Amino acid sequence: MSPKITTELLKQLRQVMKSPKYVQEPVQAYIVPSGDAHQSEYIAPCDCRRAFISGFDGSAGTAIVTEQHAAMWTDGRYFLQAAHQMDNNWTLMKMGLKDTPTQEDWLVSVLPEGSKVGVDPFIIPADQWKRMSKALRSAGHDLVPVKENLIDTIWTDCPQRPCKPLITLDLSYTGVSWRDKIVALRSKMAERKVLWFVVTALDEVAWLFNLRGSDVEYNPVFFAYAVIGMNTIRLFIDGDRMMDPAVREHLQLDSTLEPEFKIQVMPYGSILSELQALGAGLSPKEKVWLSDKASYALTEAIPKAYRYLTPYTPICIAKAVKNASETEGMRRAHIKDAVALCELFNWLEKEVVPKGTVTEIIAADKAEEFRSQQKDFVELSFATISSTGPNGAIIHYKPVPETNRTLSVNEIYLLDSGAQYKDGTTDVTRTMHFGTPSAYEKECFTYVLKGHIAVSAAIFPNGTKGHLLDSFARSALWDCGLDYLHGTGHGVGSFLNVHEGPCGISYKTFADEPLEAGMVVSDEPGYYEDGSFGIRIENVVLVIPAETKYNFKNRGSLTFEPLTLVPIQTKMIDVNLLTQKECDWVNDYHQKCREVIGAELERQGRHEALRWLIQETEPLVRVQ
Amino acid sequence: MSPKITTELLKQLRQVMKSPKYVQEPVQAYIVPSGDAHQSEYIAPCDCRRAFISGFDGSAGTAIVTEQHAAMWTDGRYFLQAAHQMDNNWTLMKMGLKDTPTQEDWLVSVLPEGSKVGVDPFIIPADQWKRMSKALRSAGHDLVPVKENLIDTIWTDCPQRPCKPLITLDLSYTGVSWRDKIVALRSKMAERKVLWFVVTALDEVAWLFNLRGSDVEYNPVFFAYAVIGMNTIRLFIDGDRMMDPAVREHLQLDSTLEPEFKIQVMPYGSILSELQALGAGLSPKEKVWLSDKASYALTEAIPKAYRYLTPYTPICIAKAVKNASETEGMRRAHIKDAVALCELFNWLEKEVVPKGTVTEIIAADKAEEFRSQQKDFVELSFATISSTGPNGAIIHYKPVPETNRTLSVNEIYLLDSGAQYKDGTTDVTRTMHFGTPSAYEKECFTYVLKGHIAVSAAIFPNGTKGHLLDSFARSALWDCGLDYLHGTGHGVGSFLNVHEGPCGISYKTFADEPLEAGMVVSDEPGYYEDGSFGIRIENVVLVIPAETKYNFKNRGSLTFEPLTLVPIQTKMIDVNLLTQKECDWVNDYHQKCREVIGAELERQGRHEALRWLIQETEPLVRVQ
Repeated sequence: MSPKITTELLKQLRQVMKSPKYVQEPVQAYIVPSGDAHQSEYIAPCDCRRAFISGFDGSAGTAIVTEQHAAMWTDGRYFLQAAHQMDNNWTLMKMGLKDTPTQEDWLVSVLPEGSKVGVDPFIIPADQWKRMSKALRSAGHDLVPVKENLIDTIWTDCPQRPCKPLITLDLSYTGVSWRDKIVALRSKMAERKVLWFVVTALDEVAWLFNLRGSDVEYNPVFFAYAVIGMNTIRLFIDGDRMMDPAVREHLQLDSTLEPEFKIQVMPYGSILSELQALGAGLSPKEKVWLSDKASYALTEAIPKAYRYLTPYTPICIAKAVKNASETEGMRRAHIKDAVALCELFNWLEKEVVPKGTVTEIIAADKAEEFRSQQKDFVELSFATISSTGPNGAIIHYKPVPETNRTLSVNEIYLLDSGAQYKDGTTDVTRTMHFGTPSAYEKECFTYVLKGHIAVSAAIFPNGTKGHLLDSFARSALWDCGLDYLHGTGHGVGSFLNVHEGPCGISYKTFADEPLEAGMVVSDEPGYYEDGSFGIRIENVVLVIPAETKYNFKNRGSLTFEPLTLVPIQTKMIDVNLLTQKECDWVNDYHQKCREVIGAELERQGRHEALRWLIQETEPLVRVQ
Repeated sequence: MSPKITTELLKQLRQVMKSPKYVQEPVQAYIVPSGDAHQSEYIAPCDCRRAFISGFDGSAGTAIVTEQHAAMWTDGRYFLQAAHQMDNNWTLMKMGLKDTPTQEDWLVSVLPEGSKVGVDPFIIPADQWKRMSKALRSAGHDLVPVKENLIDTIWTDCPQRPCKPLITLDLSYTGVSWRDKIVALRSKMAERKVLWFVVTALDEVAWLFNLRGSDVEYNPVFFAYAVIGMNTIRLFIDGDRMMDPAVREHLQLDSTLEPEFKIQVMPYGSILSELQALGAGLSPKEKVWLSDKASYALTEAIPKAYRYLTPYTPICIAKAVKNASETEGMRRAHIKDAVALCELFNWLEKEVVPKGTVTEIIAADKAEEFRSQQKDFVELSFATISSTGPNGAIIHYKPVPETNRTLSVNEIYLLDSGAQYKDGTTDVTRTMHFGTPSAYEKECFTYVLKGHIAVSAAIFPNGTKGHLLDSFARSALWDCGLDYLHGTGHGVGSFLNVHEGPCGISYKTFADEPLEAGMVVSDEPGYYEDGSFGIRIENVVLVIPAETKYNFKNRGSLTFEPLTLVPIQTKMIDVNLLTQKECDWVNDYHQKCREVIGAELERQGRHEALRWLIQETEPLVRVQ
């Protein structure tokens, strides 16, 4: 990796920061955040402005350019990568280290008195704007919105915003029609006494209208906004895609409909002016509901007195609770995914052991190939983490030619991968050894497994938040002085983003919503030994009601059902470290893999993979 | 309990709310919070203003009186009690129920336009003032500080503010001199670049100067403030107590000292004017450190630009980490406390079983009697919860003649009690059956015990916050659909308040500080069956370093050492529900009780109690 040379680019940026063509008054600093106008985690190439200006293309980072300086804030996952990708014009600000200043403090320390700090109001979330604006103001500076994105003005070969065709999902996939979703949303709006709801997150627009797209890699979403009133529906979307007869039919654009279900299609770029018009016409008590993470631009369009902001929208919460059709779809997707992985692991054992010619990249490609053979496969759900030996200890590793290692019988192999199928999204991690694991590797693997089981088998009251389960996943590791430095689980979408809110399992006590039957999360404890190996065992699990002996205060209880049905390598387990209950869990799980995935392998005529499955699901025996 | 008749009192209050003698402009509402000027949990009789005006004397509640209405907000623990103690003039606002308005919303709904809402600025914490003031202002009303407390103006027989003699603690108890504590505090101040520190919490003043008092029942504190500068120490305190030669000697008031350790003693009532003078004389960059829970009055005395507010003060954090002398003191206090309880339980078994003449109140008094026989006993650390049968299910129960039940061989007895000794503070709960417990009672008790052990034996990395351990205490109950509706543990002071911050073990994710070796918390899971029984098993435990097989990232690990050494009734345990590890924990714990408490009982010549101890600590045998 050689760094990007940014001298000329920074010179150009500093020019436009002073150019009356773009700014009313010169700005002494310009902030380039990571996100897009929808605060997406994954973004399209045209939105990779921070990577363009700096060269650093990690998933998290904020660049700030002043007349004299250029600085990049990023977190511990990316210190090395950022240092490699950026040239000397840039100062790396290592977030989380004690001496690293916050963006606000740094700005205050370098700016001349009474400076203006510019930012694209579409990219910065309203809550961040508020915090930063307050800090700057109290030091005598001003945060100002710069309408035109200044990076775009100097990015001559900026790729076009994608505008790919849409996929319509019928009731067999979604379980609920978009009309019924609108009805439910309006009833939530009535409960909270709001008259308008602005949908800004891409996965929320996609979910609401039962449409999918491919504008952003790995995420089946499309660029759009929606504004839902009690009697109106406005969809802001560009391109020919609304000309597609299937889409017109799906949205009933050409039918005679009750007016409250008539969708008005408007240009994507008109959202701001439409919201401003809406905001200007509001009368007292007419509230507009927005996520508090919506962009500053859209939030400001609604006068403060009329805004109703919440951390999670009703769509976010409804989307997280999968209905029967979605649950069935998720089950089907995970069966197909397991078939692909049984094929892959069988193939790996045949290739790695005698030949030693499989690299991390070849293994990742092979996994994709097997997945793509499955019905309704659309694309991967994230960049495959295919890592062997020391690469496994890099939690967010993605093999590239420079780092690509060959799988061998001497190293642990970790594969974290998943796919988008039309009926569901998958995300699974398995850790394998193709030779003979050491006692220490088995010991660590077994602690991770105990943590995985402790979460998966946990029974907990209705209303429990996921973060209360996080320590269960760590307890066996903690007992021996071990731990892992990431959360235990995230929400998973239904043929949608592989990471979604509002629930999760983490020691970080973010404002997660209580777990409910129908929610889907990952269960993925791990252990990483820098320079040696990485271990992670990840299933996607469904929250289901639990039968309990008693029922305190009639609250009811919940537990998890694994949707992922891929064998956990028994060779890696030190059976004597398991309790009988844990041993039974593994055997029951493998029995289910054998039955469910075995039947599907049989049906698909994949006999070699079936043989592999049977061999890998032999019951454990605990000698006491 | 008959309600207090408040018609006349409310009439008088409404008069002073309009009287130019007390208010610049009439206030249309007056807020009477629970606390005192130090935001204490336990308060002196002269501060029980809310109880005086309403009759409701629970520990939590806020009264608001308008020209037309009188309303009381309290939480679920007190719905019944408040309803019984208040007359028809009052409306009970049940906090936590969906339809109960917040104080702000209610005020907005009942007040005429442009109203003034008065409150004593010394009683309301600054953070609460901010929230309420903002809500009222946005509805066109004003929150105004009323200097003279309006309740005090009508409370003709208001008790005097206590001003009891002080106790000086020498180094053998405190381990660190007050001079060294001041030095450490100043170094924390220098780190944060603040020049002044205002000590407002009573236990923080007491801890800092190695003094104790008895102005508030159960809490060995005294009314005082302190203001620490880099070169000055001001102690605001009333009464003759500064004439006591022992106190003068302890504080070196009459010695020739370096000026930075010279304590200026000032009247308690002069804190506000002194702070205002300090605030007026500050120059840029001279910051003053206050808790964000300090009163609005004191916070306002410092101009906003000069305030440095934190949720926990450096004293609060230093106080929580017990040094070797304090730890030894806590150990001694718990040994004496265990002696008293062995005496009590032995006496109860002799009295309850054959005679049936012991009531909850008699048992509580007897417990106090036995404790008072121990060296350095000062007082109880909270009102004893002595409850049998259904009373045990009332979590904050305190026996009074109207509810007093007689202990019997047919009911579970729960005793939650503790004391202040000069060397430490105790808090212990034991649940006993004097006859034959039912299988169900044993089952529930055993789940609670499993939770108690899971916390007590937990090993966790340095830097872990207590709330991450809460679920360990519940897991066994959750497995069977059971739970308890309170936190698992609180910080405990060293001959100081029985509840102290900044750490705890709770599912409520308040901003707790990470656990550190030397911190002392309670471990007290429970199970309560309304109308039948209550179970709680509580030890006070010390955070200690743990030896582990590995040491991830060199972080080190922690665990707990029980300070409480009182047998857990084995009769209540269903041994077959315990794992071998849990069984070993109980046997090891009882072995330690036998050794440590046995030796002390022997030394004190308490042979009957020793016999009881030996009988109660017979090892459990698990039949597999």
